[in-house]
Amino acid sequence: MDLKEAIARESVQIDREMGQDLAGLAIGDELLKEILEYGLFSGGKRIRPFLVVLGARLCGRSDEAVYRPAIAFEYLHAATLFHDDVIDHADTRRGRLSVIKRYGMVGAILAGDFLHAHAMALVGRYGGQAALDTFTAATRGMVEGEFLQLRAAGKWEVTADDYFAIVRRKTGVLIEAACVTGGIVAGAGAAQLAALQTYGGNLGTAFQIIDDLLDYQGQFTGKPIGNDLAEGKSTLPLIIALDRAPERERQSLLALLHDVSQRSERLDEIVAFIDRHAGFVEARRRAEQLIDSGLTALQVFSGPGDPDFRELFEDLGHYVLSRQR
Amino acid sequence: MDLKEAIARESVQIDREMGQDLAGLAIGDELLKEILEYGLFSGGKRIRPFLVVLGARLCGRSDEAVYRPAIAFEYLHAATLFHDDVIDHADTRRGRLSVIKRYGMVGAILAGDFLHAHAMALVGRYGGQAALDTFTAATRGMVEGEFLQLRAAGKWEVTADDYFAIVRRKTGVLIEAACVTGGIVAGAGAAQLAALQTYGGNLGTAFQIIDDLLDYQGQFTGKPIGNDLAEGKSTLPLIIALDRAPERERQSLLALLHDVSQRSERLDEIVAFIDRHAGFVEARRRAEQLIDSGLTALQVFSGPGDPDFRELFEDLGHYVLSRQR
Repeated sequence: MDLKEAIARESVQIDREMGQDLAGLAIGDELLKEILEYGLFSGGKRIRPFLVVLGARLCGRSDEAVYRPAIAFEYLHAATLFHDDVIDHADTRRGRLSVIKRYGMVGAILAGDFLHAHAMALVGRYGGQAALDTFTAATRGMVEGEFLQLRAAGKWEVTADDYFAIVRRKTGVLIEAACVTGGIVAGAGAAQLAALQTYGGNLGTAFQIIDDLLDYQGQFTGKPIGNDLAEGKSTLPLIIALDRAPERERQSLLALLHDVSQRSERLDEIVAFIDRHAGFVEARRRAEQLIDSGLTALQVFSGPGDPDFRELFEDLGHYVLSRQR
Repeated sequence: MDLKEAIARESVQIDREMGQDLAGLAIGDELLKEILEYGLFSGGKRIRPFLVVLGARLCGRSDEAVYRPAIAFEYLHAATLFHDDVIDHADTRRGRLSVIKRYGMVGAILAGDFLHAHAMALVGRYGGQAALDTFTAATRGMVEGEFLQLRAAGKWEVTADDYFAIVRRKTGVLIEAACVTGGIVAGAGAAQLAALQTYGGNLGTAFQIIDDLLDYQGQFTGKPIGNDLAEGKSTLPLIIALDRAPERERQSLLALLHDVSQRSERLDEIVAFIDRHAGFVEARRRAEQLIDSGLTALQVFSGPGDPDFRELFEDLGHYVLSRQR
């Protein structure tokens, strides 16, 4: 089974499920309905619900009912984006106006709260308390990640541990919760759940590392290079390079980083510094290690059962490492 | 048992429970911890958790474990206030700086999301899916109420039905959910739950009617008179008066209302109009009717059992009608 094909096929099913579910809510207000439509159906890949479905399939559940808890993860993801765009004053999202820009503050905050509440009800109903605990811990983790990031902003001496603490919460926990919830709704045992947890957490973290690499090196992302740096965000390539550089070189780069105008003007110099001290190569190596150990964890599923699903998990790991945007 | 005494005593217990619960979350970020402390411990009466505890007691559950699901209602209430103050650009709340004013947008939105998620986990854990459904439906209802209110803003020909649809969602559903959840955690039967639902919904709606009356007549609220009117909000006294006035008088008042500058300057005239057409008297009568039928519903609890708790529910109903601020 081809990964892209599987994602495309599942996303159709996931969109259909969301449509039916929202219709079932009988939302009275037309504006709220419109915002939810606009914010939810904007051509995302539906990776999070896809992981729920895949996790459930891997653990032996083959019915259609798994789509209902799966869509909760798209709802939560969308709710998070609505709120993030308010916080970041972001005007665009996925190539069109963000919800805050198009519908204003009330729409963005409250439609987010609405989706958030409904997502939790779905997860509780179809996955029970274990899934609900996983899900709500993911939300709490994401919030904590944002706070940690806020605290780290403009600090150039953050450690790799600080970086991973943020990335794990900001990106890892929800991907992890999606994989684990798939297992929970399929009635998986502790060893299987632990494997899904390792895989999911690692996949999410690796995804973010690659994202941060693309911020320096991406030619096809449609975003300006060095955006994180301009915003005062220290990511793994820079952290590694600063850690490996000789003290004098390190101090001189830190001085440059602390100077806001220099930072953007002399981006080439910073990139050369990171490159010289293997920041890019090493960061990529960390992402590869994470995917590797994630895939190793999945060997618990090597018994009988459909190898197709495990293969999709593997392909997804490789896809994360190879993406160009 | 005296109502004020009971509220004061329970609020101490509720605050203690919140403190223990938050400590148990082991929140890593100091700023997030500070925002939660600031936003939660600001001297509220804790009416919503009080209603959960009281509902559980009325249905025969007498242990301490009911405080855990109860505090979820204070969390959700606080989360709602954090987000409302962002939406309304409110600088103060309960006589001090609002969370948005003191900690900014990130703090207000994300701390709200954190509390929201945690509240749902608690309700699910202690009240099961029935309580979770009630709770999340309340959040969805509150959001829908805000959207309805948005749509009604600046419209002076809204009907009493429109008004009740908004008030029920904005204030009624959470109070109702608190009462019902108390019953659910005590394992109450359908008839008891229905009674708590009627009581709670009516109490919340009556509370809001009195709030809206105080906006015109309150001498001790600390808020300026006619605030709703200035904001373009049509509330029950005005709706009733417009409905009862002869057509010509009605048209001339509507013309006045549509003129923003006139509206505030000629407040006395508007108040006299409402008074002349019995808007205040009739609105109060509606609130009294709601409390009456709420208390009648509670007669299902007239069998053996502690009459003290039912008495507290009754006192609360009378308190809502008599409050001056």
